[in-house]
Amino acid sequence: MRFTELFTKTKKEVPADEESINAKLLIQAGFVHKEMTGVYSFLPLGLRVLNKIMQIIREEMNAIGGQELFLASLQNPELWKKSKRWDDKVVDIWFKTTLKSGGEIGLANTHEEPLTELMKNHIASYKDLPAFPYQFQTKFRNELRSKSGLLRTREFVMKDLYSFSRSQEEHDAFYQKAKDAYLNTFERVGLGKHTVFTFASGGSFAKYSHEFQTLCESGEDTIFLCEKCRVAVNKEIIEEQSSCPECKGTDLKEVKATEVGNIFSLGTRFSEALGLEFTNETGKKQLVIMGSYGIGPARVMGTLVELFHDEKGMNWPKAVTPFAVHLVSLEGGENEAEKTYQELTKKGIEVLYDDRKEASAGEKLADADLMGLPFRVVVSKKTVEQNAVELRKRSEEKPQLVPLEQLLRTVTP
Amino acid sequence: MRFTELFTKTKKEVPADEESINAKLLIQAGFVHKEMTGVYSFLPLGLRVLNKIMQIIREEMNAIGGQELFLASLQNPELWKKSKRWDDKVVDIWFKTTLKSGGEIGLANTHEEPLTELMKNHIASYKDLPAFPYQFQTKFRNELRSKSGLLRTREFVMKDLYSFSRSQEEHDAFYQKAKDAYLNTFERVGLGKHTVFTFASGGSFAKYSHEFQTLCESGEDTIFLCEKCRVAVNKEIIEEQSSCPECKGTDLKEVKATEVGNIFSLGTRFSEALGLEFTNETGKKQLVIMGSYGIGPARVMGTLVELFHDEKGMNWPKAVTPFAVHLVSLEGGENEAEKTYQELTKKGIEVLYDDRKEASAGEKLADADLMGLPFRVVVSKKTVEQNAVELRKRSEEKPQLVPLEQLLRTVTP
Repeated sequence: MRFTELFTKTKKEVPADEESINAKLLIQAGFVHKEMTGVYSFLPLGLRVLNKIMQIIREEMNAIGGQELFLASLQNPELWKKSKRWDDKVVDIWFKTTLKSGGEIGLANTHEEPLTELMKNHIASYKDLPAFPYQFQTKFRNELRSKSGLLRTREFVMKDLYSFSRSQEEHDAFYQKAKDAYLNTFERVGLGKHTVFTFASGGSFAKYSHEFQTLCESGEDTIFLCEKCRVAVNKEIIEEQSSCPECKGTDLKEVKATEVGNIFSLGTRFSEALGLEFTNETGKKQLVIMGSYGIGPARVMGTLVELFHDEKGMNWPKAVTPFAVHLVSLEGGENEAEKTYQELTKKGIEVLYDDRKEASAGEKLADADLMGLPFRVVVSKKTVEQNAVELRKRSEEKPQLVPLEQLLRTVTP
Repeated sequence: MRFTELFTKTKKEVPADEESINAKLLIQAGFVHKEMTGVYSFLPLGLRVLNKIMQIIREEMNAIGGQELFLASLQNPELWKKSKRWDDKVVDIWFKTTLKSGGEIGLANTHEEPLTELMKNHIASYKDLPAFPYQFQTKFRNELRSKSGLLRTREFVMKDLYSFSRSQEEHDAFYQKAKDAYLNTFERVGLGKHTVFTFASGGSFAKYSHEFQTLCESGEDTIFLCEKCRVAVNKEIIEEQSSCPECKGTDLKEVKATEVGNIFSLGTRFSEALGLEFTNETGKKQLVIMGSYGIGPARVMGTLVELFHDEKGMNWPKAVTPFAVHLVSLEGGENEAEKTYQELTKKGIEVLYDDRKEASAGEKLADADLMGLPFRVVVSKKTVEQNAVELRKRSEEKPQLVPLEQLLRTVTP
């Protein structure tokens, strides 16, 4: 895509009303727009990142038998009263509103209740189980405070998968598969090395729930990490669980982290409240065993910025970058830059091509650093004279001169 | 996909609480689920249709220079007060709610105000124009009544594109392109022949707005159609415009129709209210000329059901069907059915494979008619004996026996 066709612009100034690095850089680079505190819109470049993250998650969910659906945001209070989660004293993040035709409704902050109710139409016998529906759908959460950019917002798209199983064994086997799919997902989006499986409070139906925590100084959570096992314990349960759940070692290090995903065993908490039963092999009615599995793609995006940036800007992992190559045309290199754009595009490489005539070399190079695509390619009078282009990885200081053929080989995924 | 893997089920009974054909059939076939009046969730088969419709729209919007973004649902009242559309007496479909941190907010029923405000960050000079951002995002509309299934809901994904132009001429040229892209879109989704360009009220900035109205007995709108020109006039302006706007003929036929899309010239209505200006070639400040262009993919889906169904069920156009082939395995045909499934899938053909063991032949064939995929293929003892499969188009009464090779040729897109 050509810069001159992209309608967004970078800002010279860092937004003054943001505290977090991720919001500052994403707004400055024109990836997102702040609508109000805790509410962001995604501009074309940001949406490209978000879509790539969502597609990786989708592939991983499909691989473990997930079936995608799309539930409504508007919520019928009757279902939530059955599970005792309608009351603001129990769930303190509801947005509620009123129908013109009468009656209060809510905006979904999660979807266990409506989905459990829905599944009553589709689950009757043990033959109908297991089932693993999931979706990407907006959650609305009326957070009192919101200061971490994309890490804690009042409105965000969430991937939520729910498992419906016949027995605890069947549930446990899927839970393990989901854990592996989550680890794959974080590996693929570029958070792998930094993300640790973390034991957290399990509520009333399981000893633990599990979080995927990305080690990050700006994180809101505190976890106790066993560096040997790369497993952690959330501070909330450190009194009960003060050793590593894997090796039982007690040498745990207190670190800051951001939760990028979580998986919960729900037992029969919701199937009981809403009456989701099946007839087992012997003709007896049984309650369905449930689990829920969440990832916030925008939080993943924000976390990537928190982890991968320097004083000049962002640095996107290849798998989720909006474009692979940031091609900069400088004076005297216009024709060759155009040719390079055509060649790269022909090979199926995603290129953001800075073809602006008015912008200075300094502005163009600063924008490239700010936006943080993995490869920066500069074509100028100097490079043309040497029959080459200047290639620099965003993560490296030094550029190198390479012929076009070598560039093509280097940037091809 | 195998039926035994799909978690949804069809219902034997038509839902008693729905008046519209589209809601009745879509719910009965397990494509959608009713959460409450005017609020539907999309199950896997329904979501597949919706995604195909959205992808066609996306391609058409990209082809005219559209750039996809994703705006927030939660709305800051200050922007809407500037355009005087916050007041419930002016806009009577608002859902409003309250932040825990204080202050009223709204749920977006359209996005002119936040987008106009956003564009102030990206439009300064005539060089930054034109721009055509669009999105697929949920709209919330607090409708007093809602009885037409997917045709009028309180929550629905809408494709909304907005144009930002330097001059009326530039606007008019894009408006014409958008009209053509809309006609292409309706042609591609299967509504082409039934959909007419319709003149409607233009508000204060243009003589007309334009609607794309699909002729349909169950439609909520009344239009006056010139059958020669395939152009219509909405009843709301028939007093001012009582002849065909194309041929000026007065032989207009009153018919029922459903609005599947609309395009509006907005002039400077919003750029003035929110202060969206640009510096023109002579250095003078000017207001940006805007337009808005909407299509509701779920309404398109509902309209397709209204138009294409019979007493047995739905009949999807090939471009948006959830799967191309409904493959039914009957007694004695199990092995050949499995082989047929593999062969079709290998060729990249999307197959819904009814591999159920318990369901009767009657149930399987009834489900195939209800779900309405374009091709039904039956494999049974009888067809195996004849070294063939039974192929029936959903739109035709009579099946025919064809060898596997001929089937592959017929169903390949």
